[in-house]
Amino acid sequence: MAKEAPPRSRLEPPRVPMELHVKNREKLLRSLRQHLTETSQALSGFILLQGGEEKTRHDTDHIELFRQESYFAYLFGVVEPGFFGAIDVMTGNSILFAPRLPAGYAVWLGEIKPLSFFQEKYMVSFVFYTDDIEQVLHQHYGGEEKPILFLLHGLNTDSHNFSEPAKFKGIENFKEDTCTLHPILTECRVLKSDMELALIQFANDISSEAHVEVMKNTRVGMKEYQLESMFLHHTYMYGGCRHCSYTCICATGGNGAVLHYGHAAAPNDRTLEDGDMALLDMGAEYNFYGSDITCSFPVNGRFTSDQALIYSAVLDAHDAVISVMKPGVNWVDMHKLAEKTILNSLQKAGILVGNVEEMMIERVGAVFMPHGLGHLLGIDTHDPGGYPKGLERPKELGLSSLRTARKLLEGMVITVEPGCYFIDALLGPAMDNPKTSKFFNRDSLARFRCFGGVRIESDVHVTASGCSNMSKVPRQVSEIEAVMAGGAWPR
Amino acid sequence: MAKEAPPRSRLEPPRVPMELHVKNREKLLRSLRQHLTETSQALSGFILLQGGEEKTRHDTDHIELFRQESYFAYLFGVVEPGFFGAIDVMTGNSILFAPRLPAGYAVWLGEIKPLSFFQEKYMVSFVFYTDDIEQVLHQHYGGEEKPILFLLHGLNTDSHNFSEPAKFKGIENFKEDTCTLHPILTECRVLKSDMELALIQFANDISSEAHVEVMKNTRVGMKEYQLESMFLHHTYMYGGCRHCSYTCICATGGNGAVLHYGHAAAPNDRTLEDGDMALLDMGAEYNFYGSDITCSFPVNGRFTSDQALIYSAVLDAHDAVISVMKPGVNWVDMHKLAEKTILNSLQKAGILVGNVEEMMIERVGAVFMPHGLGHLLGIDTHDPGGYPKGLERPKELGLSSLRTARKLLEGMVITVEPGCYFIDALLGPAMDNPKTSKFFNRDSLARFRCFGGVRIESDVHVTASGCSNMSKVPRQVSEIEAVMAGGAWPR
Repeated sequence: MAKEAPPRSRLEPPRVPMELHVKNREKLLRSLRQHLTETSQALSGFILLQGGEEKTRHDTDHIELFRQESYFAYLFGVVEPGFFGAIDVMTGNSILFAPRLPAGYAVWLGEIKPLSFFQEKYMVSFVFYTDDIEQVLHQHYGGEEKPILFLLHGLNTDSHNFSEPAKFKGIENFKEDTCTLHPILTECRVLKSDMELALIQFANDISSEAHVEVMKNTRVGMKEYQLESMFLHHTYMYGGCRHCSYTCICATGGNGAVLHYGHAAAPNDRTLEDGDMALLDMGAEYNFYGSDITCSFPVNGRFTSDQALIYSAVLDAHDAVISVMKPGVNWVDMHKLAEKTILNSLQKAGILVGNVEEMMIERVGAVFMPHGLGHLLGIDTHDPGGYPKGLERPKELGLSSLRTARKLLEGMVITVEPGCYFIDALLGPAMDNPKTSKFFNRDSLARFRCFGGVRIESDVHVTASGCSNMSKVPRQVSEIEAVMAGGAWPR
Repeated sequence: MAKEAPPRSRLEPPRVPMELHVKNREKLLRSLRQHLTETSQALSGFILLQGGEEKTRHDTDHIELFRQESYFAYLFGVVEPGFFGAIDVMTGNSILFAPRLPAGYAVWLGEIKPLSFFQEKYMVSFVFYTDDIEQVLHQHYGGEEKPILFLLHGLNTDSHNFSEPAKFKGIENFKEDTCTLHPILTECRVLKSDMELALIQFANDISSEAHVEVMKNTRVGMKEYQLESMFLHHTYMYGGCRHCSYTCICATGGNGAVLHYGHAAAPNDRTLEDGDMALLDMGAEYNFYGSDITCSFPVNGRFTSDQALIYSAVLDAHDAVISVMKPGVNWVDMHKLAEKTILNSLQKAGILVGNVEEMMIERVGAVFMPHGLGHLLGIDTHDPGGYPKGLERPKELGLSSLRTARKLLEGMVITVEPGCYFIDALLGPAMDNPKTSKFFNRDSLARFRCFGGVRIESDVHVTASGCSNMSKVPRQVSEIEAVMAGGAWPR
């Protein structure tokens, strides 16, 4: 009896090369050494990071599925909780510290691996137990003075939270530097290596395939969460992606106007109705590296003229930006290009009235696209490094939502995600505002009051001479309608 | 064009009656008032609980999908984060306190609902904002003295963590009682109402169906996580279950001997081999109420004689326990009954040698089943209340793992999950121990060194005169083989 699962995917989870994390460590070491040399400091001490811990839910023994802290994942690739990791600045040796597990672990949680297992698996120079950190670092240092520890402490400009520096018993016998490491390590993460790009590409490939699977199987009468379930299943079943980059946003109808829909208080629980647009923002994560893709389409498989109008306005913005992205291009300019493209379309369609340049000055674009055009993507969905020291966040409406205002650099991966939404909480005040009220055609706009929104989001790799779109989903109106009618993808 | 999804399930997510939580509050109020009366205290003050908050991952803005704190969920059924809830002991009025959301919430996260929305949705007497707690409670109290607050503080006997009492600005203007509420509220949760049972039954129904779906589609060569993915998809797609009761344990081959396999450091990533047993411990949660079901089966669909031997030993234990469960029966006795049944089978098969009563005294059963027979189940997988004040945890090997040592009561839901595992870390020492070495037939046991284990777990409702098994999966060897060969279930 043949017992083969039917082929539902062209993809297979790729082998994860641990050299990726070795190279990440080497890159950091080069940057840090250069900084220390330039600032006339000794090339000694240790970079020290503390990995994440498993968390239980409130007072219970319910353990949340652990996902490693992102900076630690970048440098060491360790999937297990409770580790510390160090890099000896002088020798370049890397040291992992593993938790000493109680004997009962073998019965309840699995084989207690010898330290050599982790040394081999994670390609580090040495592995010791976490309760030996103080002693080991002092031995490896060998100097007379207290060794310096470069600890991770700095602002995440998206969350406005600070990363927590490592803590361990005996840390008082070291000198602590909590200023140097964060900006240097963050900057390392901004430019992706080829091995990092390959993982982001796989996360994109499996997520793209899953988006197509969802598109093909979306039906009027379903619940939004059923689209989420199909996506999660496809990326885990065929891509081995246990984690998503973020909670799936499966917004239909008016919910499309809620930018971060899908959370516990808005849990993808609406029933799909004939005539709805769907806005599905979903991306899988593979070995820590993520994807972030949004597809918008009519749930019944056929665009109305109004739906095609708004969709095409956003697609034009998406394509216009990607067509000019290359190193040196300023991201704020890209945001404005997207805004302007959308405003032009709305004006041509008679939804907006008047001069588009004037609308730009009055920030009318931010009424329809209140979020930033896109963000760096990597181990975090909103990857850090968007505002390095000295780069100010723009103050203007809409632009102030940008998660980065940088010039593009070769090796960045950044999302391009223009959107056009009909948000009562923004449209009302803008139509009442004497400076902007004249731009709005109330009669036309009335047609869109329950429309929701359209977002089109791709993950784009900035190359030496331009850029490359890593997300491979149907984008043209005709492509989407063909796929939803049962057509093959890729064609 | 007909666009109907193919029917893959007989089930539909049931309506959740908010009366369930109203009745939970009434039950608590009755118990607390009775206690206050018996201890000659005034029937006044407020029960006050703090709901859970959304958490971000480390320093990032990655928000973990929120699931309400369990005691708060029990009393108020609130799915949104950031709430407080109070019950006026004198009047019985229930009061929810909702967070005051910033205007930007409407753009990013959804409509800002009026307080009346929550009043209606959650069937409470009043709703105010959380920043008004102090003032509102003082107004509702109306007395001269500081009103008393009954706050939740007590030990979870599974995690050994303490629940955190509510905290808010101005709490110093109340008298705090952190002793009274926890045991009374915990005891309320131990006995399930009919409405609670209906939700646990649905979680069992959809999870049972999903287990069967997984069984039917398991193939040699798959990864363990693909079985997890199929389960998660079925329960979410057809049952609307966004959360599982716990991280899925999808153990095959030797991994079956790791009781809590499946976590981040042992992430269901083995490839299924011909001849493996699978041990799948997976349960979905519906409106907070959970299920916890384990099926064990050969991945190729046919039991070998050794597999059938161990499987039948465990199934006999499972059935023996369920056949005698009823109010008044002591759970420690049930554990021993399961142990003895398994030891008898192993002795009959020649794997163990000697007198089973003697083995019981020497705790040989705990070598093969180191965990407890089962635990209370409800809003938490390990539902609290297993060791009320005065009931001591047994000290003997194996029995000390019991999450409860209570006598059964009508209305309890408790898992029956005997298992038989071949765990090197336990077998080695037991065979070396002069007191127990004589019981082991080393030649026979050698056949089972890579066997892993078998667990059979059902959720059982204790009724007035006996019990009822809520989990409806194939259990007999013949049933499992028939279903895996494509047979219908239920037959």
